[in-house]
Amino acid sequence: MGVDPGLRNTGWGIIDAKGNRVSFIASGTIQSNNKYSLAERLKQLYTGLQEVIERYDPAEAAVENTFVNKDAGATLKLGQARGIALLVPSLHNLVVSEYAPNLVKKTVVGTGHAEKEQIRMMVKVLMPKATFNSDDAADALAIAICHSHHRGSVTGRLAAAEALLK
Amino acid sequence: MGVDPGLRNTGWGIIDAKGNRVSFIASGTIQSNNKYSLAERLKQLYTGLQEVIERYDPAEAAVENTFVNKDAGATLKLGQARGIALLVPSLHNLVVSEYAPNLVKKTVVGTGHAEKEQIRMMVKVLMPKATFNSDDAADALAIAICHSHHRGSVTGRLAAAEALLK
Repeated sequence: MGVDPGLRNTGWGIIDAKGNRVSFIASGTIQSNNKYSLAERLKQLYTGLQEVIERYDPAEAAVENTFVNKDAGATLKLGQARGIALLVPSLHNLVVSEYAPNLVKKTVVGTGHAEKEQIRMMVKVLMPKATFNSDDAADALAIAICHSHHRGSVTGRLAAAEALLK
Repeated sequence: MGVDPGLRNTGWGIIDAKGNRVSFIASGTIQSNNKYSLAERLKQLYTGLQEVIERYDPAEAAVENTFVNKDAGATLKLGQARGIALLVPSLHNLVVSEYAPNLVKKTVVGTGHAEKEQIRMMVKVLMPKATFNSDDAADALAIAICHSHHRGSVTGRLAAAEALLK
């Protein structure tokens, strides 16, 4: 499960990964209503993420380690949403990995400075059946792909190391 | 219930408020272990706040609307902890009020630029039985006092307005 957190829109994506092969399961966007209080909006994100995890029962989670911009108010807002995105998988005892946006882009597109359009395109190339209703959902799928790739390479390195030890 | 959120230390304080009279019930500090992952640490804060709310069953909650400093990394960290502090009371259907630190200081000490020591002292003056094991716990009690005061003044203004309408 990949999550791209945001107070207004939190994208999520579920993929199946076998070795380096990835396939699309589902994706979506959880929205919070800005007419409500901040606490209520965070509850909306919490409830939405709970529903996704209960429905798809992912084995692992990955969250974008969002680049912090220069506006402190926006950073605080993002932090609050991100806190919920990290908490909910953890409450389900999933290990939550974090990836920098540049690594996600580099893994999926090949360069750390990719545009949103390139990410959407490469997600479709890697998983032709993928659908997404927002850039955040596409980003969440990219984060999930990034995790499957780097988790895989760790497993690969571990297997290689163990083979040497035999 | 007042909460002073922080990733390492989240202070909490429970008071009883009748009109302008406040009395101390309990306070404490929830700590997260920095040897664990961020997601695990947020779960520790979540679990600690859940326990406090289940034990003391507060009717209302107030959280410091923390002043954002200039370090974006620290702001993001604080935001993540603050997200949990806002979420947990909301999950228990408490209305969560937010107060700026300056208003908390002005309400409790009389000036918006009070030192931590002055806050501790005034919390003891207002509630002689108060005990706290950290500055964060004392701040949480100050936030609770601030809420009781401003909630009270709204109630007072409403009563005055209704009296005029009769």
